[in-house]
Amino acid sequence: MNETSTDEAAQQRGEAFLADFAEMSRFGATERGGVHREAASAADHETRAWFAAWLERNGFTVVQDAIGNQFGLYEFIPGAPYLIVGSHLDSQPMAGRFDGAYGVLAGAHAALRAIERARAGAFEPEHNLAVVNWFNEEGSRFAPSMMGSSVFTGKMPLAEALAITDRHGTTVAEALAQGEAAGRAGDAPTPSLYAEIHIEQGRLLENGGHTIGLVDRTWAASKYRMVVHGEQGHTGATVMADRKDALFGAALLIVAARELTEEFEEGRLHSSVAELSLEPNSPVTLAREVVMNLDLRSPDEAVLERANAILVERIAEIEARARVTIERELTHQWGLLPYQPEGVELARAAAGELGLPHTEIMTVAGHDSTNMKDIVPSVMLFIPSIEGVSHNELENSSDDDSVAGVAMLGEVLTRLLRGDLSRY
Amino acid sequence: MNETSTDEAAQQRGEAFLADFAEMSRFGATERGGVHREAASAADHETRAWFAAWLERNGFTVVQDAIGNQFGLYEFIPGAPYLIVGSHLDSQPMAGRFDGAYGVLAGAHAALRAIERARAGAFEPEHNLAVVNWFNEEGSRFAPSMMGSSVFTGKMPLAEALAITDRHGTTVAEALAQGEAAGRAGDAPTPSLYAEIHIEQGRLLENGGHTIGLVDRTWAASKYRMVVHGEQGHTGATVMADRKDALFGAALLIVAARELTEEFEEGRLHSSVAELSLEPNSPVTLAREVVMNLDLRSPDEAVLERANAILVERIAEIEARARVTIERELTHQWGLLPYQPEGVELARAAAGELGLPHTEIMTVAGHDSTNMKDIVPSVMLFIPSIEGVSHNELENSSDDDSVAGVAMLGEVLTRLLRGDLSRY
Repeated sequence: MNETSTDEAAQQRGEAFLADFAEMSRFGATERGGVHREAASAADHETRAWFAAWLERNGFTVVQDAIGNQFGLYEFIPGAPYLIVGSHLDSQPMAGRFDGAYGVLAGAHAALRAIERARAGAFEPEHNLAVVNWFNEEGSRFAPSMMGSSVFTGKMPLAEALAITDRHGTTVAEALAQGEAAGRAGDAPTPSLYAEIHIEQGRLLENGGHTIGLVDRTWAASKYRMVVHGEQGHTGATVMADRKDALFGAALLIVAARELTEEFEEGRLHSSVAELSLEPNSPVTLAREVVMNLDLRSPDEAVLERANAILVERIAEIEARARVTIERELTHQWGLLPYQPEGVELARAAAGELGLPHTEIMTVAGHDSTNMKDIVPSVMLFIPSIEGVSHNELENSSDDDSVAGVAMLGEVLTRLLRGDLSRY
Repeated sequence: MNETSTDEAAQQRGEAFLADFAEMSRFGATERGGVHREAASAADHETRAWFAAWLERNGFTVVQDAIGNQFGLYEFIPGAPYLIVGSHLDSQPMAGRFDGAYGVLAGAHAALRAIERARAGAFEPEHNLAVVNWFNEEGSRFAPSMMGSSVFTGKMPLAEALAITDRHGTTVAEALAQGEAAGRAGDAPTPSLYAEIHIEQGRLLENGGHTIGLVDRTWAASKYRMVVHGEQGHTGATVMADRKDALFGAALLIVAARELTEEFEEGRLHSSVAELSLEPNSPVTLAREVVMNLDLRSPDEAVLERANAILVERIAEIEARARVTIERELTHQWGLLPYQPEGVELARAAAGELGLPHTEIMTVAGHDSTNMKDIVPSVMLFIPSIEGVSHNELENSSDDDSVAGVAMLGEVLTRLLRGDLSRY
């Protein structure tokens, strides 16, 4: 092949990817260019069915496991374990079309490219290859998040996951049964390696002029369930000094969580409160109880520890000021978790060969690769996120970056399949 | 009758009232001595049926009008209009057993006392007498509050009220139909006068050592519906400076509403936020929208005006700080609304005759009498509220004060029935 025809082939592959991505993004499409596709919703089921058909059309055998993970299997070596590549097709409510779905389709197109090369004799695969759509990565409808990969990696029992209910009392099992199985029911493949690509959800790549992020670590995080206990009272008649208003206490806590981030250098601490419920939620009765989440995240474990200590002080101040009591339950806690350094090095070499500007980067958000890296060597890649917009309909990445990400992932899959990981 | 037998009769009347009140308080009873009896709930329907039976047993004709107001009619003069006395049997969620229900049963017992006196020839009634249980005064299940008296006084169209839905989509009409009509369906009586007694829901009577409050005015109030508009974003990955977190904006507004009260002398301004919802309410996605109420109340119209002006300044500051926009819709606004002064004087004379310590007082909360005073002369009375606890299971008043309130109301009804109002 001469250089011109190679360029043409690459351009055709890019156009094919963008066309498929546009088609897939119609399921659950929102007015401003995003998708609303919560796990096992009608829109998610439609996307899954479309993706199963795509996989079959392209030579994969499609299997759906008991927690709804969807695998497209391609066997090079009968009985050998699989290099798995993918992400998730479900979304947050009113979210962007890249978060998760890009990684699944990019994985599928990159897998095609690697298969094509192997078939052309460019290398000898040492693993089989599977594309995955992990079930319910987002966790907005059925908590917790990363459900499919948690069951796959043995971190959550299957029966427990299937019994989890949404706000209307529908179980995961019932919601999954509402869609046709997107593939024959069967066992998940045995993994040997994992790769995933995702939109960054931040501004570092964009600001630095990089096309590819080589994810080397996760931010540290402390996630809390907070319960503010007050006392009901009449919103008008109760003397201000007598009030034990749980919503006032909660508001002080939300403000304190934000102000906590201002005590550190920019970018050293992120905090959020995003889920909240109150009782009795009546316009004329002060809240007796507020339940909410509160997350602290940092790229520096010492900063996170200091932030947690300050939070404890703030809580005591708020309890006194609002005359409430605050229960603080640590629901999730992790430090800076590394991805396998040899995977980062393999990806660095791939980006170098393709001439793609790249940098090491940490991930703030959790991904299915956060689970997978605990059982097999895993490579996690980012493409740029325009202005860092995330969990929002306006989330976006350029066509050039989207296509470059697929090429990069294809190169990574090739190197993983041929056994390069042992070189680093 | 000699003095001893009069005292004995009074004691028996007091005991009868307390026994009936204890019996009635079992419907929707909560663990800590309160009631949970939202409008047209099963517990409300049970209370209504019990009360209808009580009225019939005691010689009243029971009629339920189209919006579910329950009237016990006693006719002295065929065709004459009615002095109506009562309050409401529905409650806030997990609330006290006095708020509303005390006034209905006290009205019924006081009516019995006045009827007994009239029959004994102690005076010549110039009005008929009706006891009322107004439907849905609380408004926690079906907004707005004071629904029954609003329809009765022509402030709200019947059809509009019947079509209002609760959070599960059940209409007022459907919820009312779920209980048997507590009385024969029929027209409400034509009113000439109104009287109501209620627990204070504040501490002024207790602090001042008074048994009876003579309500002369309502506090002024401004009630808002606030909508905070932000943008969805990832709770972890979105750079803090990029966030447009609607819940952070809402929290700043809740804190600002409280701090506003601290800019005035104690007791000059009350504020509250007690009803709030957010979208998408997902643990990992920043809120794009928060809807909440915000009330300001004052016994001084100038203070309220100044508070509203400061609120506007605070909103602008919060919009800038949280990068959100805040819509402020004034849903209710009223100034200091007087009760008829001649009614206050009549009540003062009654309290004086009974030797009950009394004082003029303003009401912070709205009552059905707030509606009734706009169509007929109305007398509004308070009994003390222990520590001012209100909209709370622990709401309480002493047995002595409860019984004194019934006696006071009986004396007021006697004076109203015999036409004393024209003397003041």
